[in-house]
Amino acid sequence: MKVELGAKNCLYPLPTVLVGAIVNGKPNYTAIAHVGIMEPNAVSLGMNKIHHTNQGIKANKTFSINIPSTKLVKETDYCGLFSGRDKNKSELFKTFFGKLKTAPMIEECSINMECELINTVDFPSHDVFIGKVASTFCDEAVLVDGTVDFSKVDPILFVMNDRNYWRLGSKFAEAWNIGKELDARFVPKLSI
Amino acid sequence: MKVELGAKNCLYPLPTVLVGAIVNGKPNYTAIAHVGIMEPNAVSLGMNKIHHTNQGIKANKTFSINIPSTKLVKETDYCGLFSGRDKNKSELFKTFFGKLKTAPMIEECSINMECELINTVDFPSHDVFIGKVASTFCDEAVLVDGTVDFSKVDPILFVMNDRNYWRLGSKFAEAWNIGKELDARFVPKLSI
Repeated sequence: MKVELGAKNCLYPLPTVLVGAIVNGKPNYTAIAHVGIMEPNAVSLGMNKIHHTNQGIKANKTFSINIPSTKLVKETDYCGLFSGRDKNKSELFKTFFGKLKTAPMIEECSINMECELINTVDFPSHDVFIGKVASTFCDEAVLVDGTVDFSKVDPILFVMNDRNYWRLGSKFAEAWNIGKELDARFVPKLSI
Repeated sequence: MKVELGAKNCLYPLPTVLVGAIVNGKPNYTAIAHVGIMEPNAVSLGMNKIHHTNQGIKANKTFSINIPSTKLVKETDYCGLFSGRDKNKSELFKTFFGKLKTAPMIEECSINMECELINTVDFPSHDVFIGKVASTFCDEAVLVDGTVDFSKVDPILFVMNDRNYWRLGSKFAEAWNIGKELDARFVPKLSI
């Protein structure tokens, strides 16, 4: 039986990431999970305007996305709990830079993407930053035959509904393939 | 050691959803995983312009997001493999409607959100539809004490890098809480 929940966003889980930017000359990191992909090389960050990090993204037109593993859950949650106005979060991690120079990245995260800001969608309470991935770095340890293995990345998945962090499970089917088994079995070709 | 991968999007996994719209008077469903959250009640769909479904979203300014479980992986993948121009995908599922009347939803998916189109971001190859959740339905069976339990939803997570579908694992930490353990232990208060 279906139950109506009201206007309840259930588009979860989403990956929890650490967003990096230079704010007032210093690397700052905040944790968010309201992220998305817009086209293959473009990502979005839905960031409440209260975040200190937003100022740095607007000023430099660059940011980084760092994917922490479950081992970094305390550091990640900390970065979401406390503002860079009050805490020096850059001391939690070792920072490195890529070609953009103003998108600080976290050495301890196995995946790092430096991004150029290409658009902003303005909501009353949120800045939605749209970025183009400029360059991606990963730990050699998460590569298998040149492809990132997400079981090794071990990301922190977020569900708002229960306010918990979840692990990634195992892979179980091949995309753009397993559905071929249904072709011509259940669905008639439309007459034209 | 860090390895540079070039401009490689690694913002995964994301939840695979079935997007519903009325196209030429008929419900149509397509599978996408390039989704996101912009602010708590606003979602985004990054949809290649080749999709048949895009026409219906533009015409009616409504769409639905349905979250299939791993048991529906063949049907879900099928909806991503084949276009509504060639196949009548509405015959795969039982359709129901909510208050928007033009956002067809899938009975067999345990979570359904009907959405109103509030903005579109135009990319060369993709329409990014931004929607406001108008109303959400769920199967009674996925509710525990009134909250959606994502282990019961059992969503299909997508990773583009290896082109596989993955399961959700288990929850392991409380958000906005576990990071408190680090407070005052590692990070000094900034001097003002």
